[in-house]
Amino acid sequence: MTDIAMIEAAAARLAGHARRTPLLSSPFLDAIAGRRVLVKAECLQHTGSFKFRGAWSAVSALDPGRRARGVIAYSSGNHAQGVALAAARHGAPAVIVMPADAPRLKIENTRALGAEVVLYDRATEDRDAIGLSLSEERGLTLIRPFDEPLVIAGQGTTGLEIAAQAAEEGVTQADVLTCCGGGGLAAGIALALEAHAPGLRARPAEPEGFDDTARSLAAGAIRRNAALTGSICDAIVTPEPGQITFPILARLCGPGLAVSDEEALEAMALAFLRLKIVLEPGGAVALAAALFRPEAIAGDAVICVASGGNVDPSVFARALARFPD
Amino acid sequence: MTDIAMIEAAAARLAGHARRTPLLSSPFLDAIAGRRVLVKAECLQHTGSFKFRGAWSAVSALDPGRRARGVIAYSSGNHAQGVALAAARHGAPAVIVMPADAPRLKIENTRALGAEVVLYDRATEDRDAIGLSLSEERGLTLIRPFDEPLVIAGQGTTGLEIAAQAAEEGVTQADVLTCCGGGGLAAGIALALEAHAPGLRARPAEPEGFDDTARSLAAGAIRRNAALTGSICDAIVTPEPGQITFPILARLCGPGLAVSDEEALEAMALAFLRLKIVLEPGGAVALAAALFRPEAIAGDAVICVASGGNVDPSVFARALARFPD
Repeated sequence: MTDIAMIEAAAARLAGHARRTPLLSSPFLDAIAGRRVLVKAECLQHTGSFKFRGAWSAVSALDPGRRARGVIAYSSGNHAQGVALAAARHGAPAVIVMPADAPRLKIENTRALGAEVVLYDRATEDRDAIGLSLSEERGLTLIRPFDEPLVIAGQGTTGLEIAAQAAEEGVTQADVLTCCGGGGLAAGIALALEAHAPGLRARPAEPEGFDDTARSLAAGAIRRNAALTGSICDAIVTPEPGQITFPILARLCGPGLAVSDEEALEAMALAFLRLKIVLEPGGAVALAAALFRPEAIAGDAVICVASGGNVDPSVFARALARFPD
Repeated sequence: MTDIAMIEAAAARLAGHARRTPLLSSPFLDAIAGRRVLVKAECLQHTGSFKFRGAWSAVSALDPGRRARGVIAYSSGNHAQGVALAAARHGAPAVIVMPADAPRLKIENTRALGAEVVLYDRATEDRDAIGLSLSEERGLTLIRPFDEPLVIAGQGTTGLEIAAQAAEEGVTQADVLTCCGGGGLAAGIALALEAHAPGLRARPAEPEGFDDTARSLAAGAIRRNAALTGSICDAIVTPEPGQITFPILARLCGPGLAVSDEEALEAMALAFLRLKIVLEPGGAVALAAALFRPEAIAGDAVICVASGGNVDPSVFARALARFPD
């Protein structure tokens, strides 16, 4: 089970390898939110999202013999790229299992980061069977995207940095809004804040209609999403909170927040204009909640995690189209 | 005359007020350039460009009585926003003189940062006469955009950070490509590197056809641009190097580099895709030179300054359109 000692150990392994991303701000965003808004820009992390932290944490913790046989992950998104780069930099083989209809650019990027991409047909093939067979044959270690203590510990290093950076800004009491899919990032941050910044409280932010974590927190038990497609914030749509992440979230997090796809696009546009960073829709929901749910937040300041920036140009152009020329 | 002591004094005044911007990288950019590419992301500076450093340096150095009367600047761009915010945070009035046909958003931004914007008609009014009259009437101090020792010292703090960050990356021998208009940033960086990283050499990067600094360096004397309009990189088009900046550049800089508008747009697109930062065309020319002029650069690594990100959405969309969907 992940605890603060595991997060601090992960931070030691990540030192010099992951970026300490900046905490950004703009008086224009403060004016919209009606309070100070501090944005932890994890889109600037290696591979464009916080996922590199958890991947590095997991890969670096393997014993060298096991690592040399390689790792495997199921993902067509940010976790895939994080695992691919973390493995490559350790000189370890990585196999990423992806649907054959994944965007070409994502497949190419993952290969360019040094991974072997194994494609499967979603209609006719069983992903887990393919992965299991490869793992047994080659002795690969599976790196789960969120329900894995070492991955949660890696994501928690974001929270250690937030605790230090918020203190530098004089902020000791605030909500820390975190884009939330399976809950690995939110759980890791919540544990780090509990230990190092008890006046900061983690709160998950999700897309409306896919707010399984908010509903689970309210119910005190895991609740599923009714659907798994239909949000532009696809990177953070998961069936339900994890078996490992949920108890952490339930113990430490404040109530969840949810925003619409339109609000996520608006937050992307404002991050472009005011912070000069690129966010993907799922990486912008925490900023959107900070800006557009002011009544649901208390205090003079709010911190939000901008968790990723791997967005298709056409989707980004949709966000930009909100500005009049 | 700006020297390293002035730059270090400026760094002390900027501490806690300007951001220490990150040095970013991507294996994908390294592959294009054929060497390591390290990008100093000054687009993440307050007001979206390095100009905030020089403005803060100049405003903070004024004696309090003079500062309380206020400052004035002529600019419709990055210098205007830098001076406006630096003055506002010192509680000092700022007057920004802008052409009446400047983009509405730039006028509104400058006002929102607390400055009084005085508009003039380019066809019928004399900007300098308006500024001089206001300055005399109110006792305002003029903050020049580049040919001013305190401004050069502020921009030089970028170079102090590059020296430290490059050493952390193990890079001690490299060209440091700097987007160059009047030369304030390039001169400040060159002085900082001379003192703190003698193996790093500043080199100006400019738009093709507006490479007054490159031609001046080659000739050993100031040369003018034939035209002052016609580049998408308008933020760094100036008539000629400054009287104060040029001798510094001539003593310390390597040969200049020039890139096309198309190459600047391509570099913006790659910065979006690989670094998740927003660059304006004039802020992307150094990255473009690093990526597309490999034969003009020596060594295993190149550092480039991404100097600003204040770009109209429609121009950014033009850069994004280079990606096939």
